[in-house]
Amino acid sequence: MDLEEKVIKKEPKYHGSIIDVEKQTVQLPNGKQASRDIVYHSKAVAALVITKDNKMLMETQWRAPVQEVTLEIPAGKVDSRDTGSSEEAMVRELNEEVRYHAKTLKHLTGFYTSVGFSDEYMDLYLATDLEPVTDELPRDQGEYLGIKEYSLSEAKQLLDSGQIKDAKTTMAILYWELLSK
Amino acid sequence: MDLEEKVIKKEPKYHGSIIDVEKQTVQLPNGKQASRDIVYHSKAVAALVITKDNKMLMETQWRAPVQEVTLEIPAGKVDSRDTGSSEEAMVRELNEEVRYHAKTLKHLTGFYTSVGFSDEYMDLYLATDLEPVTDELPRDQGEYLGIKEYSLSEAKQLLDSGQIKDAKTTMAILYWELLSK
Repeated sequence: MDLEEKVIKKEPKYHGSIIDVEKQTVQLPNGKQASRDIVYHSKAVAALVITKDNKMLMETQWRAPVQEVTLEIPAGKVDSRDTGSSEEAMVRELNEEVRYHAKTLKHLTGFYTSVGFSDEYMDLYLATDLEPVTDELPRDQGEYLGIKEYSLSEAKQLLDSGQIKDAKTTMAILYWELLSK
Repeated sequence: MDLEEKVIKKEPKYHGSIIDVEKQTVQLPNGKQASRDIVYHSKAVAALVITKDNKMLMETQWRAPVQEVTLEIPAGKVDSRDTGSSEEAMVRELNEEVRYHAKTLKHLTGFYTSVGFSDEYMDLYLATDLEPVTDELPRDQGEYLGIKEYSLSEAKQLLDSGQIKDAKTTMAILYWELLSK
């Protein structure tokens, strides 16, 4: 079955600081037209960071879209400082956010975060063999974080009780549980 | 540490068919101002659907934001037809997309899909004890799907080879693997 839609028209709708929004008019496989809303976003990275004590690092952070403090694994956007490399972005973000250098950085998986309306693609890593950084990089302006450490059983409890409700963090805990079996 | 940001100004930027975009000016904990891009999206649902043969159902679908056909678990938006209930939306979506009624629908978890810029919240279910529906509901206009079935080892292979690159689908496979251990 041919599933492809052909783009007939692209209308830029918003140029923001972290997103660009476009409305597309497309031709469906049956020849009819439909409209598509698209949010373009940088590539992103996130890490399941495991300490020498076998705890995972999480961050508390205010999230404007949901008007609450969330509990999430370290993550960030791949930006112009990273010459396009996700691994380089991950090393930088771990320095900026949790002040560690991971001597072992393993790629676990990569995925579109919400492919129905956005092209955001995130690479998820496992970061271990941590050393405190000696060259602390400045955090992004306006970025306020609290750092937490949890054992696997604590993390699973936070997930089961609904206190963790962030997709990448949920996925990281599932990977950790699988890796621990 | 106080992490909360106070909203000073809200500017609507785009009213689309599936998203609304807003620019906010916020006051940071240190008193300075920053801008936030926010994409509002309906709540969503998705399901790990397991057949009597112990296969999971997936769909092939053209995704405009990434200009390719993706392999994903059944999913959809909670809309006005569902009177706000995620479970009702899930039942409807399974009828529309895969033509099954799940006699057992278990809530696995719920999460923000990309909380850095969007409020989209998705509930993930485990759907089992499938029966073909007798009252087929019409699919959304412009929705073209192919339906596939995979064993756990096939699904893991698709994930490891990078052919599955959708967050909710990755999460569903990890849950399935954990449930199978």
